[in-house]
Amino acid sequence: MENSIRATIEAKINQKLTDEESDKLNKWFAPIQVEKSEQIVFEGKVCRTLYFVDKGLMHTFIIDKKGECNTVQFGFEGYWIGDMFSFFSGKPAIFNVEAIEPATLFAMKYSDFEKACNEIPKFESFFRILVQNGYLSSLQRIAKSFTDDAEKRYLSLIKQQPDLQQRVPQYLVASYLGIKPQSLSRIRHNLSKNKSG
Amino acid sequence: MENSIRATIEAKINQKLTDEESDKLNKWFAPIQVEKSEQIVFEGKVCRTLYFVDKGLMHTFIIDKKGECNTVQFGFEGYWIGDMFSFFSGKPAIFNVEAIEPATLFAMKYSDFEKACNEIPKFESFFRILVQNGYLSSLQRIAKSFTDDAEKRYLSLIKQQPDLQQRVPQYLVASYLGIKPQSLSRIRHNLSKNKSG
Repeated sequence: MENSIRATIEAKINQKLTDEESDKLNKWFAPIQVEKSEQIVFEGKVCRTLYFVDKGLMHTFIIDKKGECNTVQFGFEGYWIGDMFSFFSGKPAIFNVEAIEPATLFAMKYSDFEKACNEIPKFESFFRILVQNGYLSSLQRIAKSFTDDAEKRYLSLIKQQPDLQQRVPQYLVASYLGIKPQSLSRIRHNLSKNKSG
Repeated sequence: MENSIRATIEAKINQKLTDEESDKLNKWFAPIQVEKSEQIVFEGKVCRTLYFVDKGLMHTFIIDKKGECNTVQFGFEGYWIGDMFSFFSGKPAIFNVEAIEPATLFAMKYSDFEKACNEIPKFESFFRILVQNGYLSSLQRIAKSFTDDAEKRYLSLIKQQPDLQQRVPQYLVASYLGIKPQSLSRIRHNLSKNKSG
């Protein structure tokens, strides 16, 4: 486990880990390298591993009934990615996860996750906050899909992740917003016109 | 706190509460009666109370950009309802909650929730599981919105809640499924034709 993950945990729980706790956790995180476009989670297959993004960029997507790919989440540095549903339930994954950029991840298996929660209460607290925040984000996303138009959702996305436009292909951003790439081009064009006008 | 809520907690954590723990929790849940159509959570206003549905039926809804009401969750007996976002963050609610049927609820304030988590570890465990399950359900709902058509989502809804058709007005079921009431009538008509045919 690199410093990035220790720092993430400490920031979230607002407490320091001891070196002993950090060393223990270290054993349960395995570094892995993934290539660009490499897929690590497959819809329909059980995946009891969760990934911390140390470097690079991942995304979670789902194939809709028309066979089209829909991005539901981006995983930038410091994000956790995987299929939480499969991870906790042991049932087949409902999402796919693949690399948009070559990435370095830290992988944690469910059995080690359970050990970590039992042996390091601070890790359990950290994870409880992570799940709670994930839940609140998904509720906000459901709410915004009703109340905010695509332009507003695009603006909030780039505010949250300013390097999104440089790192994510436009067709994936459009898919995340649930609009056609042409509509995203129109939105971006209007925004740049208003900015310069 | 009535037996229904004690039973819900015990079933979820697979452990018994002592009478002392149950008596303690009792102090933090206030029974309230709501009339049919009475609204208890308002989008835009902070709501740091969470409700357990003991009797009756509630729903969570959101007003979309066209001014139309969209049901995002039903709260049958044994469900928890409210605005989790506002409850945990202290920010304005993103949803509305109102009664579909006259209801008896048990209300818990955030300050008492914190006391309950600190003083009764079993309650904290229960709530962690509740939030985790809520998160997984919202992920499943997002996935199904891409993969399942309205008929499939309707069938899975009535399987989960068999008395839904008797208790929830059709326009609210249609709104939950994100379709027009006429489309729901067509789905129900086709299903009954296939059943009898």
